[in-house]
Amino acid sequence: MENIIGKKEEVSKTITETDVYLFAGVSGDFNPVHVNRVEAEKSIFKKQIAHGILVSSLISNVIGMKLPGPGTIYMEQNLKFKKPVFIGDTVRAVVEVSEIINEEKNVLKLSTIVHNQNEEVVIDGYAVVKAPKKGEI
Amino acid sequence: MENIIGKKEEVSKTITETDVYLFAGVSGDFNPVHVNRVEAEKSIFKKQIAHGILVSSLISNVIGMKLPGPGTIYMEQNLKFKKPVFIGDTVRAVVEVSEIINEEKNVLKLSTIVHNQNEEVVIDGYAVVKAPKKGEI
Amino acid sequence: MENIIGKKEEVSKTITETDVYLFAGVSGDFNPVHVNRVEAEKSIFKKQIAHGILVSSLISNVIGMKLPGPGTIYMEQNLKFKKPVFIGDTVRAVVEVSEIINEEKNVLKLSTIVHNQNEEVVIDGYAVVKAPKKGEI
Amino acid sequence: MENIIGKKEEVSKTITETDVYLFAGVSGDFNPVHVNRVEAEKSIFKKQIAHGILVSSLISNVIGMKLPGPGTIYMEQNLKFKKPVFIGDTVRAVVEVSEIINEEKNVLKLSTIVHNQNEEVVIDGYAVVKAPKKGEI
Repeated sequence: MENIIGKKEEVSKTITETDVYLFAGVSGDFNPVHVNRVEAEKSIFKKQIAHGILVSSLISNVIGMKLPGPGTIYMEQNLKFKKPVFIGDTVRAVVEVSEIINEEKNVLKLSTIVHNQNEEVVIDGYAVVKAPKKGEI
Repeated sequence: MENIIGKKEEVSKTITETDVYLFAGVSGDFNPVHVNRVEAEKSIFKKQIAHGILVSSLISNVIGMKLPGPGTIYMEQNLKFKKPVFIGDTVRAVVEVSEIINEEKNVLKLSTIVHNQNEEVVIDGYAVVKAPKKGEI
Repeated sequence: MENIIGKKEEVSKTITETDVYLFAGVSGDFNPVHVNRVEAEKSIFKKQIAHGILVSSLISNVIGMKLPGPGTIYMEQNLKFKKPVFIGDTVRAVVEVSEIINEEKNVLKLSTIVHNQNEEVVIDGYAVVKAPKKGEI
Repeated sequence: MENIIGKKEEVSKTITETDVYLFAGVSGDFNPVHVNRVEAEKSIFKKQIAHGILVSSLISNVIGMKLPGPGTIYMEQNLKFKKPVFIGDTVRAVVEVSEIINEEKNVLKLSTIVHNQNEEVVIDGYAVVKAPKKGEI
């Protein structure tokens, strides 16, 4: 199983106004920095930013769809929000197996990093998951 | 500022199929356990579950809207997914100030817990935030 | 123009959970009686109700689409919420020309009533509109 | 209870194309001035405008969430549409207690005004509500 360390998958998306508004609708997070253009321009960010949790949802996409993929049990997610993501930014979530926590139970630690189009890290962090079946990923 | 420790706010919502589908659309996380009824019934959960990150978005709601509220800078979020949330479950996100990390810079640690309608903890974790202005919360 | 008095148009729709959730998302109105099944059951309504403004949007549908239709300028809307609309109720918005306020400017008063599937009035009220062009409706 | 007169709460949001399209989908109000860019440009407004009822939903947000808040029974809403709201406008709904109609039954009259980013009144009007419990707001 050792050889899965360093295995990597990713997904990317341009974060649009529609994403921010749908996410605001689902979460109820109407913080002006996300949904009020006038207030956002007065903020330290100078324009509307995407919700950090919205951006992190792309990590969930990679874990649930690709690595380890369907069947994975999501145990923990740590997110460090390093830089704002603006409406129109194109981000890329990269998930990489960094550690085998419990080989018996197939519990893995994953590095979970989101970059923007300038290759800046916007979210740094890690996940702990129980992969579906030993040897299946 | 000490007196803010223990300050608490919350928000609640019944998680519906609509939420799961809108979130799937935004995140691209089409893991069958979320959007495929047939496959979900064969999974260990026996029915469709909500995305963990979708449930955690209610924490972002409380932090961005109420405690500390507009102007807060979200620095870190840790999420431990303890139990699945099924479509139709009613969850309640509770945010509580647990520690003043840096009084000068107004950096706080918040306990962030999501309960279901049976008062079971579905997400446990914490956030680190920079509150808008000293003494304003 | 007198002969337009009594002219009537309508539209009907079953109000679903999806409607309530999309409307909650657009409006930010997460009042528990709309989006929290557990709290709604403890309320005087005993179950989740649709937002009154959501139901009234069907009046806007009839006015903007049919009577007087495209080109109409919406000047005033009065809404009296008579009974709750529950998720799953089928409502019918009926708009009827009741008065010519200003024949020169084509300003009309409309009776705007929404019924549920039991023919109970759930919204009573009126609108004032400037119809597109004299004689066109 | 007299001291609640003048109590005020508000919410703000930039009205986007996403809002207009989701609201069009829920209401079925596909009036070309809202969802047809080509026709809207030929209208007296010269560009796409938001549905008046969509804008008024922010009043429902404030009443249902903040003043008087959860538990309120919405009895009446009057809306005078004073100016169009264009896609991209940032509006602010302000609700203020203006009169105690029935102290025994806790029935209040609220002034409900929506401004745009230029502080122009786009909706003027009032609501009548039954507040949850005497003295609780």
